[in-house]
Amino acid sequence: MEMPAEVTVMEVSPRDGLQNEDQLLTTEQKLALVDHALEAGCKRIEVTSFVHPGRVPQMADAEAVCLGLPQRGDVRYTGLILNQRGYDRLRATERLDEAGLVVPASDTFGERNQGLNVADGIAMAQAVLRHGASSGFPVQVTIAVAFGCPFEGEVPLERVVEIASRLAEADPVEIALADTIGVGVPAQVYEAFARLREALPDMPLRAHFHDTRNTGIANAYAALQAGVSVLDASMGGIGGCPFAPNASGNIATEDLVYMLNRSKVEHGVDLETLIEGARWLEPVLGKPVPSMLLKAGGFPQDQP
Amino acid sequence: MEMPAEVTVMEVSPRDGLQNEDQLLTTEQKLALVDHALEAGCKRIEVTSFVHPGRVPQMADAEAVCLGLPQRGDVRYTGLILNQRGYDRLRATERLDEAGLVVPASDTFGERNQGLNVADGIAMAQAVLRHGASSGFPVQVTIAVAFGCPFEGEVPLERVVEIASRLAEADPVEIALADTIGVGVPAQVYEAFARLREALPDMPLRAHFHDTRNTGIANAYAALQAGVSVLDASMGGIGGCPFAPNASGNIATEDLVYMLNRSKVEHGVDLETLIEGARWLEPVLGKPVPSMLLKAGGFPQDQP
Repeated sequence: MEMPAEVTVMEVSPRDGLQNEDQLLTTEQKLALVDHALEAGCKRIEVTSFVHPGRVPQMADAEAVCLGLPQRGDVRYTGLILNQRGYDRLRATERLDEAGLVVPASDTFGERNQGLNVADGIAMAQAVLRHGASSGFPVQVTIAVAFGCPFEGEVPLERVVEIASRLAEADPVEIALADTIGVGVPAQVYEAFARLREALPDMPLRAHFHDTRNTGIANAYAALQAGVSVLDASMGGIGGCPFAPNASGNIATEDLVYMLNRSKVEHGVDLETLIEGARWLEPVLGKPVPSMLLKAGGFPQDQP
Repeated sequence: MEMPAEVTVMEVSPRDGLQNEDQLLTTEQKLALVDHALEAGCKRIEVTSFVHPGRVPQMADAEAVCLGLPQRGDVRYTGLILNQRGYDRLRATERLDEAGLVVPASDTFGERNQGLNVADGIAMAQAVLRHGASSGFPVQVTIAVAFGCPFEGEVPLERVVEIASRLAEADPVEIALADTIGVGVPAQVYEAFARLREALPDMPLRAHFHDTRNTGIANAYAALQAGVSVLDASMGGIGGCPFAPNASGNIATEDLVYMLNRSKVEHGVDLETLIEGARWLEPVLGKPVPSMLLKAGGFPQDQP
């Protein structure tokens, strides 16, 4: 039941948090969201994605967001990409510190989400990863729907480990497993990351959870126990999924940080500032956010 | 990271779920709620509490609820009591299978909640437990605010273990730790139950969690790993706490059961029937319930 001494929180609200929101934010509002994360102490922030604006209108101003980022040597800004073209756009901005690829764990999801089945997704990712490695630019990769697929159902863990092993051949700086539709449970998460750690003992591992079925924080706890060193989270818990239209989104950064604080796991992010960020988001999005710490507050009251 | 092969789910919606609801239910509605739990397959149900009706108006019909319960030899019906008087009322109904005592883990909470500090609470409970043991009537006991107190803040684990050890002298059939205000985190929960198991190796242990700060399902997972054999939960996730007026309630039975199902832990309760129960509750209470499975549905879709 060991917990690590420290963990890095990657704030993904500007990308995964916003990408399915109907309410389009201005570039200035997105940069204000990044500022909230910086103010809270986040050192890794996923700021945008380089995808076709027809598919994800919220991300149409990716380049403008990058140009507006405060230059901070101590912060790692990431952009999400689905293919070589996205990688080229990201590199052209000269403002990001890292690219984050996505490879599907199921053919059907891959074809619908990025027009690539698993095999083609691996080949695409290997090419981009090799370009990154040879040019000294950090590229990490996330395996989507690793804990279950909305079209194919259960995803065999063997397949996920095999995909990760193929990706590892091309030297990513990190591999993540994503519970894209929020179906994972902690026993499954522990087993998956334990198997991945066994297969790839030196690879830094990241985890990406959605709180769709109330298992998000439990999954984060299990991932920490299995040796994951970075956890994605989204201020306010925004980031709902089109496959469960009424459900919650990414795990809320403030909910995660509350659990980490009371578990004595170091992370460097301030809970109260995150709660202020979640509060700021509600009028911007024109609706309540799923964050539970925003409603309940910290504990004990004088140490939120 | 071992999970047990099976766990018992105690449905507490008729008592803890309803007790803070402004909307008073009729006795018939309460019995319909019990019927939903029976239909789902629950074998332990906390059906009411024997407290002063001036303090908890929702429980004023405790005796009438007991008289209306379907007689079921395979189900353990429990009533909650705070003192000898409640115990006497419960026994007089001759319809319940078990009494559940509450002892506070902090003086201030105990004085406000039941007019007893910790020492007086232990003495009261020991007397009732001894009466139960000598008359062959099962009495279990729950230690309230075991993971944190709204008035005193952190509650030392040593104190909780000491209280449990004192209670164990009087032969309860089970001891529970309750996170009454929903502040616990899984690392804390694991440590607490591991210590309790060490101190009282033969005592059956139960856990009671509120999902106030999004740690409820994570805490349930940690409690299972630490050897807890019974988990309290409430259909719909109802059971909000007066100390966090906008927050969620008990862990939702359907959210818990989803996690158990996908973790291959046996429990005998049907997820789809629970979701129907949660759906039935919304018009009865006149508001949405916090349940996440009600919003998102099970997974895979054909095996909810």
